Amino acid sequence: MDSIPFTADKAVARNYPYNCWWVAAYREEVGRSLLSRWLLDTPVLLYRTGAGDVVAMEDRCPHRQAPLSLGVLRDDEIECGYHGFRFGASGRCTHVPTMAGPPPISVETYPVRECGPFVWIYLGDQQRIDDVPPPYDIGWPADPSFGVRSGHIEVAANYMLLKENVLDLSHLGFVHAKSFGITDLTSPPQVTTEDETVTYCQRFTEKPLPAGYALALGMEPGVIWNRETYGSFVSPALQISSVDFRDPAKPDSEPMGRIRFCHATTPIDRTRMHYFYMLGRDHARDDDAMDIFAKVIKIGFAEDQAVLEAIQNFANRSPRRGSSGERSVKADAAGVHARRAIDRWMARETIPTDAS
Amino acid sequence: MDSIPFTADKAVARNYPYNCWWVAAYREEVGRSLLSRWLLDTPVLLYRTGAGDVVAMEDRCPHRQAPLSLGVLRDDEIECGYHGFRFGASGRCTHVPTMAGPPPISVETYPVRECGPFVWIYLGDQQRIDDVPPPYDIGWPADPSFGVRSGHIEVAANYMLLKENVLDLSHLGFVHAKSFGITDLTSPPQVTTEDETVTYCQRFTEKPLPAGYALALGMEPGVIWNRETYGSFVSPALQISSVDFRDPAKPDSEPMGRIRFCHATTPIDRTRMHYFYMLGRDHARDDDAMDIFAKVIKIGFAEDQAVLEAIQNFANRSPRRGSSGERSVKADAAGVHARRAIDRWMARETIPTDAS
Amino acid sequence: MDSIPFTADKAVARNYPYNCWWVAAYREEVGRSLLSRWLLDTPVLLYRTGAGDVVAMEDRCPHRQAPLSLGVLRDDEIECGYHGFRFGASGRCTHVPTMAGPPPISVETYPVRECGPFVWIYLGDQQRIDDVPPPYDIGWPADPSFGVRSGHIEVAANYMLLKENVLDLSHLGFVHAKSFGITDLTSPPQVTTEDETVTYCQRFTEKPLPAGYALALGMEPGVIWNRETYGSFVSPALQISSVDFRDPAKPDSEPMGRIRFCHATTPIDRTRMHYFYMLGRDHARDDDAMDIFAKVIKIGFAEDQAVLEAIQNFANRSPRRGSSGERSVKADAAGVHARRAIDRWMARETIPTDAS
Repeated sequence: MDSIPFTADKAVARNYPYNCWWVAAYREEVGRSLLSRWLLDTPVLLYRTGAGDVVAMEDRCPHRQAPLSLGVLRDDEIECGYHGFRFGASGRCTHVPTMAGPPPISVETYPVRECGPFVWIYLGDQQRIDDVPPPYDIGWPADPSFGVRSGHIEVAANYMLLKENVLDLSHLGFVHAKSFGITDLTSPPQVTTEDETVTYCQRFTEKPLPAGYALALGMEPGVIWNRETYGSFVSPALQISSVDFRDPAKPDSEPMGRIRFCHATTPIDRTRMHYFYMLGRDHARDDDAMDIFAKVIKIGFAEDQAVLEAIQNFANRSPRRGSSGERSVKADAAGVHARRAIDRWMARETIPTDAS
Repeated sequence: MDSIPFTADKAVARNYPYNCWWVAAYREEVGRSLLSRWLLDTPVLLYRTGAGDVVAMEDRCPHRQAPLSLGVLRDDEIECGYHGFRFGASGRCTHVPTMAGPPPISVETYPVRECGPFVWIYLGDQQRIDDVPPPYDIGWPADPSFGVRSGHIEVAANYMLLKENVLDLSHLGFVHAKSFGITDLTSPPQVTTEDETVTYCQRFTEKPLPAGYALALGMEPGVIWNRETYGSFVSPALQISSVDFRDPAKPDSEPMGRIRFCHATTPIDRTRMHYFYMLGRDHARDDDAMDIFAKVIKIGFAEDQAVLEAIQNFANRSPRRGSSGERSVKADAAGVHARRAIDRWMARETIPTDAS
Repeated sequence: MDSIPFTADKAVARNYPYNCWWVAAYREEVGRSLLSRWLLDTPVLLYRTGAGDVVAMEDRCPHRQAPLSLGVLRDDEIECGYHGFRFGASGRCTHVPTMAGPPPISVETYPVRECGPFVWIYLGDQQRIDDVPPPYDIGWPADPSFGVRSGHIEVAANYMLLKENVLDLSHLGFVHAKSFGITDLTSPPQVTTEDETVTYCQRFTEKPLPAGYALALGMEPGVIWNRETYGSFVSPALQISSVDFRDPAKPDSEPMGRIRFCHATTPIDRTRMHYFYMLGRDHARDDDAMDIFAKVIKIGFAEDQAVLEAIQNFANRSPRRGSSGERSVKADAAGVHARRAIDRWMARETIPTDAS
């Protein structure tokens, strides 16, 4: 497999597309107070109107650049904390204390959509918004047969480092050997692509079930069982992954146990990301069991964070290059396809619109 | 009003003139010990000779660049703490331990003047020193009828952000609504310019007197009274501001109460400043009353600092520009005039002298 | 003496040669665990094989750039902590968990040699390795008649600042006046050069012996005695220095007391260095006496560190240049010759090899 230029070393160049829907926040994070969050190198202010609509605008007052998040929400309007300029949900200035009527000033607002557990935001070219795939509904968090937990961490690494992490699960046997105890992902997965979606799949037919999986399913660790681990790079913003369990005696039946993850990563800037993750399963769904599940995942994702931040930290120090770049192997196929998909996303941004 | 390019976003370009007198320190800060202070991107060493004269020199030994402030003062000479080179108040090397006589080496010294409460310094082109206005004497701190207090903080923001702050007092009703309690500065002030001085003035005729003012004057909060708030951008280094109070029955009399401020800002570098401020009034001058006055001002200026540093911090992160720059309104007139004055100060630096 | 451009101000340009043997570690620091150390802007991993050989390789996995030091040592192989790739002591990949046989992937390894107390490393052009002087054996640490101590500190300064520091001992009377109490180094030393070695020598004939020297020799402070202080810039990596004591009645005899130092400095990057230092003497060698000796030296070298870091810190802040660069005097002769030697080391790196 070809050697592909390394993501972290190219940290100074932007490798995320603007023309894409990204996760800005969990829906419940956005309410009647002001949430400031850097997304794609842009300071964004998020809040809800009294009617419950989400508003996203640049978190800098167009008058003298004060972060609007230092201001206050008055009804559905933001009052800047510096000179009291007010802006409505549309971004239009509605009031300046020293003026009789509002001046023709606006703050930029951004399209948002609530879809699944997330508030999604589009920070790109408005004329291209219809050309990009809409926010993706992961579905299962709304399914009452699933127990669901979520987390949000800021990771000091380029967002693609996490994309590649969850597209090559062979790291489980090393990074997470103790926390997850799943050490049998030792074959390259099958990888398929469809449009810009990259999917990997790994089937374990009549294989010993790792302890963590087995116990949650009420079975003995090591029981001979079928399981299928698969996942998809859905867009630069989102990956999903799944594990399905089946009785080897009924290999074509519906799964008798399902685990689901989603990994939404949104660049803060070139070297940092928001990582919104969700986990769910349709068994062992009582609070105590889900607490343990969430705790183990939290430990594991902190292990990933440590590795990714170490990679980025070394890249940030601009080391003299010794070895000749990255070398990929077959198990990287999904990650390499994802990089190519990102390259195409980026290339599409540079195509002029008819209007330009 | 035109949109003017934003100061903080241009943080990498120098927007302060060298050819200008700037405040280096309060007079009482400079004595027989060594004071090291960065001023205009220059490390400066300040001390007094035995005769009491202030000396300012570059705080780097011309031999091997050690900060001279790590050395010791011997009579009127600085002995470098690295190899013991000595320099007199004129900057000339007077002694090298390994040499019989001093070599022809000098450290650069800078003209200083004591004027009012400050030591002023000129770090610019020596051939132009007579072309720039001399240090400005604010006068009232030496007036025995005034109670006077002062402060010095380092603010992590471009110095012009503070200039603009104190030229548009409409921020009092928002940044300082609770600390100062003055919320009636809701009209744009009258702005006049004369040479490079920009002056604003705001008259409150037969208007309720805010509580803080009234109590210090021994009156009831809200009493109907006359007051005049005015101030001037004197130079890139200095702004002054005043409040005068008059009995509405005698509108043309001398003020029966006066408050004075001075705001001296000296760039440390492009994104940080020294802020030397003074406050005084000719009423409620006992120590306890002045303590309260100084405390309220300290709280208020910390509120300003928080806003200015938030603006600079966002600018330092090089956000992708959303909204189209800054938009000014009529209340910004004084600040916009000051920016134009700064532009002229900067332009004058680039005019070659006859000698060059 | 000419003014030579200042080292710290040129911090952004590389002023250390790659084609040179540098000290990577003390021999006893490298064992059967993983030691990660940045050397010449390169992350280096050091360990010993079971047979005791030192291995040095780039501390970045050629697969996905994870620091190999986050992995584990399995026999003589490194297993990457991310995806479990294994690399032998030669750098060749020996195993990838998802592959039947190892792929043709290698991590760069670097020649190392154990010489004297140090592990030396060569990070330069492999075709030039025979053109550069081999690691230098300082000898005395292996001499049983010497008591020996060592230290390692990281100094946030360009490595040449320390080179110059130990080539101009006139700083002892200022930086170390209280700690070392040697204040008579007030004459420029004799300086000689041979190939790229720069040597200084300073003879004190029938002069009072400073207290620290005298007491260790079992004599009265201030006794009239002969001593000779000398040292050499051996290579960009190493300086050595010595003090020999002789009875003035037998000026041509073998020294009746010897003190030895070595100063090995290895750039971490342009503005930081590793400083490996050793000290030894052939008298007052009992543990208690050596503890005191080592403690005094530790205090003194911390005094040097403070000065050098202050110089570098000011340079890092990119001050506006006031005084016209550095000015050298006769006592700088050794340091200036060392700078010129460095210039030649650097120039030789740019000469193409026959093969290129």
